[in-house]
Amino acid sequence: MKKYIYFFDEGSKEMKSLLGGKGANLAEMNKIGLPVPWGFTITTEACNKYYQDGKKITPELKEKIFENLDKLERKTNKKLGDNENPLLVSVRSGSVISMPGMMDTVLNLGLNDETTEGLGRLTENPRFAYDSYRRFIQMFGDVVLGISKYKFDNILDSVKEANGAENDTDLTVDNLKEIVDKYKSVVKKITNIEFPQDPKEQLMMAVIAVFDSWNNSRAIVYRNINDIPHHLGTAVNVQSMVFGNLGEDSGTGVAFTRNPSNGEQKVFGEFLINAQGEDVVAGIRTPKAIEELNNIMPKVYDQFMEVTKTLEGHYKDMQDIEFTIERGNLYILQTRTGKRTAKAAVNIAVDMVNEGVINKEEAIMRINPEQIDQLLHPTFKLEELEKAQKIAKGLPASPGAATGKVYFTSEEIVEASKKGDKTILVRLETSPEDIEGMVSAEGILTSRGGMTSHAAVVARGMGKCCVAGCGEIKVDEKKKLFKVGDIVIKEGEYISLNGNTGIVYKGIVKTQEAELIGSFSKIMEWADEIRKLKVRTNADTPRDSEMAVKFGAEGIGLCRTEHMFFKDNRILAVREMIVAKTTEERKRALDKLLPFQQEDFIGIFEAMGPRPVTIRLLDPPLHEFLPHKDSDIKVLSDELNMDFNKLKETVEDLKEINPMLGHRGCRLAITYPEIYEMQVKAIILAAIHLSKDKGIDVKPEIMIPLIGHEKELKIIKELVKNTADQIIKDNNVDLQYKIGTMIEIPRAALIADLIAQEAEFFSFGTNDLTQMTYGFSRDDSGKFINEYRQKEVFEKDPFARLDQSGVGKLMEMAVKLGREARKDIKLGICGEHGGDPESIDFCHRIGLEYVSCSPFRVPIARLAAAQAVIINKDQSE
Amino acid sequence: MKKYIYFFDEGSKEMKSLLGGKGANLAEMNKIGLPVPWGFTITTEACNKYYQDGKKITPELKEKIFENLDKLERKTNKKLGDNENPLLVSVRSGSVISMPGMMDTVLNLGLNDETTEGLGRLTENPRFAYDSYRRFIQMFGDVVLGISKYKFDNILDSVKEANGAENDTDLTVDNLKEIVDKYKSVVKKITNIEFPQDPKEQLMMAVIAVFDSWNNSRAIVYRNINDIPHHLGTAVNVQSMVFGNLGEDSGTGVAFTRNPSNGEQKVFGEFLINAQGEDVVAGIRTPKAIEELNNIMPKVYDQFMEVTKTLEGHYKDMQDIEFTIERGNLYILQTRTGKRTAKAAVNIAVDMVNEGVINKEEAIMRINPEQIDQLLHPTFKLEELEKAQKIAKGLPASPGAATGKVYFTSEEIVEASKKGDKTILVRLETSPEDIEGMVSAEGILTSRGGMTSHAAVVARGMGKCCVAGCGEIKVDEKKKLFKVGDIVIKEGEYISLNGNTGIVYKGIVKTQEAELIGSFSKIMEWADEIRKLKVRTNADTPRDSEMAVKFGAEGIGLCRTEHMFFKDNRILAVREMIVAKTTEERKRALDKLLPFQQEDFIGIFEAMGPRPVTIRLLDPPLHEFLPHKDSDIKVLSDELNMDFNKLKETVEDLKEINPMLGHRGCRLAITYPEIYEMQVKAIILAAIHLSKDKGIDVKPEIMIPLIGHEKELKIIKELVKNTADQIIKDNNVDLQYKIGTMIEIPRAALIADLIAQEAEFFSFGTNDLTQMTYGFSRDDSGKFINEYRQKEVFEKDPFARLDQSGVGKLMEMAVKLGREARKDIKLGICGEHGGDPESIDFCHRIGLEYVSCSPFRVPIARLAAAQAVIINKDQSE
Repeated sequence: MKKYIYFFDEGSKEMKSLLGGKGANLAEMNKIGLPVPWGFTITTEACNKYYQDGKKITPELKEKIFENLDKLERKTNKKLGDNENPLLVSVRSGSVISMPGMMDTVLNLGLNDETTEGLGRLTENPRFAYDSYRRFIQMFGDVVLGISKYKFDNILDSVKEANGAENDTDLTVDNLKEIVDKYKSVVKKITNIEFPQDPKEQLMMAVIAVFDSWNNSRAIVYRNINDIPHHLGTAVNVQSMVFGNLGEDSGTGVAFTRNPSNGEQKVFGEFLINAQGEDVVAGIRTPKAIEELNNIMPKVYDQFMEVTKTLEGHYKDMQDIEFTIERGNLYILQTRTGKRTAKAAVNIAVDMVNEGVINKEEAIMRINPEQIDQLLHPTFKLEELEKAQKIAKGLPASPGAATGKVYFTSEEIVEASKKGDKTILVRLETSPEDIEGMVSAEGILTSRGGMTSHAAVVARGMGKCCVAGCGEIKVDEKKKLFKVGDIVIKEGEYISLNGNTGIVYKGIVKTQEAELIGSFSKIMEWADEIRKLKVRTNADTPRDSEMAVKFGAEGIGLCRTEHMFFKDNRILAVREMIVAKTTEERKRALDKLLPFQQEDFIGIFEAMGPRPVTIRLLDPPLHEFLPHKDSDIKVLSDELNMDFNKLKETVEDLKEINPMLGHRGCRLAITYPEIYEMQVKAIILAAIHLSKDKGIDVKPEIMIPLIGHEKELKIIKELVKNTADQIIKDNNVDLQYKIGTMIEIPRAALIADLIAQEAEFFSFGTNDLTQMTYGFSRDDSGKFINEYRQKEVFEKDPFARLDQSGVGKLMEMAVKLGREARKDIKLGICGEHGGDPESIDFCHRIGLEYVSCSPFRVPIARLAAAQAVIINKDQSE
Repeated sequence: MKKYIYFFDEGSKEMKSLLGGKGANLAEMNKIGLPVPWGFTITTEACNKYYQDGKKITPELKEKIFENLDKLERKTNKKLGDNENPLLVSVRSGSVISMPGMMDTVLNLGLNDETTEGLGRLTENPRFAYDSYRRFIQMFGDVVLGISKYKFDNILDSVKEANGAENDTDLTVDNLKEIVDKYKSVVKKITNIEFPQDPKEQLMMAVIAVFDSWNNSRAIVYRNINDIPHHLGTAVNVQSMVFGNLGEDSGTGVAFTRNPSNGEQKVFGEFLINAQGEDVVAGIRTPKAIEELNNIMPKVYDQFMEVTKTLEGHYKDMQDIEFTIERGNLYILQTRTGKRTAKAAVNIAVDMVNEGVINKEEAIMRINPEQIDQLLHPTFKLEELEKAQKIAKGLPASPGAATGKVYFTSEEIVEASKKGDKTILVRLETSPEDIEGMVSAEGILTSRGGMTSHAAVVARGMGKCCVAGCGEIKVDEKKKLFKVGDIVIKEGEYISLNGNTGIVYKGIVKTQEAELIGSFSKIMEWADEIRKLKVRTNADTPRDSEMAVKFGAEGIGLCRTEHMFFKDNRILAVREMIVAKTTEERKRALDKLLPFQQEDFIGIFEAMGPRPVTIRLLDPPLHEFLPHKDSDIKVLSDELNMDFNKLKETVEDLKEINPMLGHRGCRLAITYPEIYEMQVKAIILAAIHLSKDKGIDVKPEIMIPLIGHEKELKIIKELVKNTADQIIKDNNVDLQYKIGTMIEIPRAALIADLIAQEAEFFSFGTNDLTQMTYGFSRDDSGKFINEYRQKEVFEKDPFARLDQSGVGKLMEMAVKLGREARKDIKLGICGEHGGDPESIDFCHRIGLEYVSCSPFRVPIARLAAAQAVIINKDQSE
């Protein structure tokens, strides 16, 4: 039989995946000589076997549990169920990845009517014994037997009231005995069985309950939120109890070896005298700061300080330690890597390098790139969150926190913002027409659309909080309200959004601003030294470009030209261009647009200086630029001096059933080459302007979207080249530019060798590539992707994390074929995945030259790119 | 320098791609000793070089032309431009693939004022000489100088009128001289130059004109329609003239070695005495049947009959021969493989096998699979077509010909059909709701959608004529009319559709029914002996299944279950199911559907007998089944006793921006497993019913659509298996069934090894696979795909012919990965490409087990599959 149980002297911290974090660390602490109460760990494999066997424990496992129990009894000199010297144990879950409070624990196991008496005699403290017993029955009743806690609480309260007891501590032994009796009656009444008196039976029931708690609903939700795989299973730790509630020489507490909120190098913790661990957590009594222990028990304090140093030194990281003092003896019950705020993480990492504890690479590995968002975006105040009323949950589309009054149109947002109101834009989905409203709003909430929907992409670009695809809310844009179940939120009412979790709150939840700290720059500096991938940004405006440069962007990987089309008075010319009936009419309209586009590019080139700027020519279907409501069409027909019916016909004609797969991208340029011609003109004229006027050596990279066939690129490349070279010649300047393509259609990846013959660079457009490779519309998949994650079809939304086995395979093919055909081809990624750490690691591995992401994700990408180097170096060694 | 010119004694029939069909065959006939007037051929490569050089003829080529002219003069003992013994030549185009009448020809070249006199003396027939001269000026004027023919015709007519001449033959030499003078004045007046008198200059100008005619607009259109690549170029044949118009001992004619319309083994042709070739074509004089030549010139007749035998024997195929008799001497001017009707093709092929001329494999290769459609579908009568008024051209979505009154809704079609009217359903696009109308209509015309749009797929399935994606027509369903330019066709007016060409005609064009002939079965029998691919059919009804079996289908490769959902009173239950708010409600509605589905499957299984039947579980998005207009929603809300607003909300909620990439296929079953559960029940119960009641050993293959991730299949497979096995167990029977999947999402092909672990078979759904691999919506791409073909981005609509380098690459990957993971995996294709001969060849090469196509394409597929074996055997030898 496989070894399903490890006694504490058999394990080590390296065995985390088998023993869970808690079990592995208990064994490790035992190994390095720290005072850990004895016990053993049932492995995660045993848990998985339990589930495989249809939630059954095999006789073999049971036997092994009792064998280890024997050993525990020998080590402690106590015996489970012994009336004179009873062994009491705790039975705790212990998962591989920490899931605090999500699973179950049973303490004081081993108590029954007789051992309680024995414990009372042994400790000379019958009150303690019966208090432990009533706690045990309640905990066992709740966790193992599924009896609601409040049934027990009611009894406790009524006995307290009947006896005029204010606190639990005011209860006498007799009171406690009465409570125990009543507790047992409740158990009998509800479960129809007597409260189990056989401690071994108690133990087996508790083990099963802990196994089962792996799949309780809150644990499942927690794992979904935190991307923890559901198949890991939990270990179970059976450990002899020590008691912090045996009198004034006992106590219990928790401490961090450094301050978890700012990283200060000073033990940070609290404790309670004469208490059990749960009392600290329960918050009934106010714990004391750890420093005060020095006054009460100086020797124990010194010993504990020594332990914190040992543990931090041993683990080389900030530790979160639970301890208990039983009659003056210190016991360490748990140590784990301490959770910390982003600020603390960064500070601790830098401090530890300065202290010589870890090196720069280790420091870089210590920081979760995703956490960096916290340093860049506003967050909710923690105390505010507790009382906030959650009303719905959507996709965490763009990080940050926002509070504001709800409005349903871009115009109203702009209006309200002018009056000084903080606002939240709520819509079914956003479109490019909403840009102004999105700029003015604090946050954006949509009921449709996924992680790469318009709202999500644009909000991330702006560094603005966004919750997308929140299907639970029913938006009624006409009536200016939305509903969630029975709750109705009307225009002007407050809501708050958490862009990191996707949660929507009713009313105001106060936020705090982001603050940038010195250690952050240090970490970024180290990351830049190590990483091989360059980091560019996706930016469409001079403002975004400047911000991105501040965040360390080394160029623009994706400048979308279509967003510019919506600005101000340009949209009319755009529409004129679209509804033009002849090439001449179209060219006339395009001539009006040319100076605007040129101006845009001048601004962006100026912000980016000599850094390369990749500009994607027009991509979306033309229909997106037209009005759709009859009333709006009427206005436009007047503006353009056109017949309403003819205009409406044109609008209808341009409608597509699946616009994502329709007439867009380079396909537009096959039909209307004059559009790209104008854009190329604008780019080249802007570049020439800057090189002449400001001496900036601009490096434009002209990118053709949606290429699926090499001939498309051939035709358009010729157009671009002819246009550009003519202007360069006319201006008598020397300007270098590149022509390349997006790889965003599966076919492009499949025939990348043919495409590379025409393209000087590839940029993987992994949003579209994911869409088409998976056949998932990013606008529509929000609806069912959550269900997919719940059923574990995939672990993570493929629009948020690159699907390496499918989409990634295409990318690898394209990289290989592309390099075969053109040795020096430049390869990058500009899909949203360019800002996702795990996807960045993939990009590093397949040998891309750069990733490109929204400005606010640039620091994350820099860090992740450095981590990728470190991780893959380790693996190749 | 490359050899750009071949004299007739240098070429052979194998050099067709260089010399064009005409030139290669002239050289070949010369080689086998037939009387061919001497000449030489300028190659297609020379033509392509001419275009590469910006439409310029190099001095080197010119020199070579004159060198060959020298040789020609030596061979004929005549001299170009010689006043005593002038050489006259014809300058004719000659493309690799025949494009009859599309390019230009100049005859009698070499005549000028002086050589005409000489020719008159030489032939002792000045009238003939001047008649030839005036013909030459007109032809040269038209072809080389671009002067409209009618300008010359006007002169001819006025001189005839002035001289009381009824026919051209009534004109005297003087009349002709007058005409020649006037012709020359017209040339001078229009082109501002004298009519060129230097025969060498004439020759060079004519060569250039023939090169240019490769790209005249009618040639381009012809190539587009007939899938002829635009880059081939044309050869130019310069050949010494012989004259059939030198008197009663001269003549000219054309003949087929067998009857081209029915294949009868008897020379079929006609001739004119004292005439030039163009007179036969012009149709002014009525030619005589070839048999009559025996009476007039029995020796020449015998000689010609001998020639037909020689040529047919040499080419081993029916020949189309042009000949001229000059003063009793027979000359052969052209031979080529004769065009023939499908009926003739099949009859000739079978006859030639019986005659021992060719073997079965050759017979099979002789028949163009696409032509077989003609044998299965009605066609327009040829004489009707000439006078028919074309009004628009769409995609040839489903073959056949149809004439009927236009109606715009399914209901009106049904209504009118009941009254006995023949009808054509005209819509923007069809949806499953239109099925009944499609059944009743003679043909279907849509303004949107491509070759695999709903209308196209369903029409092909029914064997019904359909023109789809006809963007030129503006359909106004409300006003019940459509417009093409200024033409308005209202409800009840007649139009006619040609499903083979996509052309729409105004009014009635009479059709003739298809007729099946004996040789057809023979060919099919031979094809079946040879082919390795099995041929299944895509059929959803017992009627289609029966028809397909008659056409030779060996199973069903795709039975779509959703079409059944629209029938009669089922749709209400379907809608009830969709709008259900709880699983219980949904199950109740599904329970109502179960007996219907079961009945459907019983019918299909019965029709197919022991042949395998692959049933695809529900695929389309649920939204497709719901009404969309407020009024229809109201009706439904009453029927379902639901609140209108709530229902409308549900309808809105289900709308998707890109439904093709949305919540459909297996994704529905992840959310609502009970739908597939019901369908599996219906399949298994039907199979059990047939095996118990009729002893038919039904072989259901349950196919899960839209799999992109192996876990989807794992989850659904478990559901299917549990459901099926339970019923089989309950019924205590032994029933074998298979579970497999469509490969229609690029990702599925990329991870086919993982999917094959769960799937017993793959069926390539190449419609969707093409859509997603190319990023082309089949509903929307119709709009720009024509432009793509015109710009030669691709040669053929990828929805009609499998894109081998892109989509095909994915298929090859999937085949390889699938077989690696499961050796005996069954592989087939059920996309529309399964009926396209070239795609079938590909399927054969990558080793699929079967193709599946609509019933009417089954014979085509059988033939194409046999051809694939023959072609690939040849290549591998």
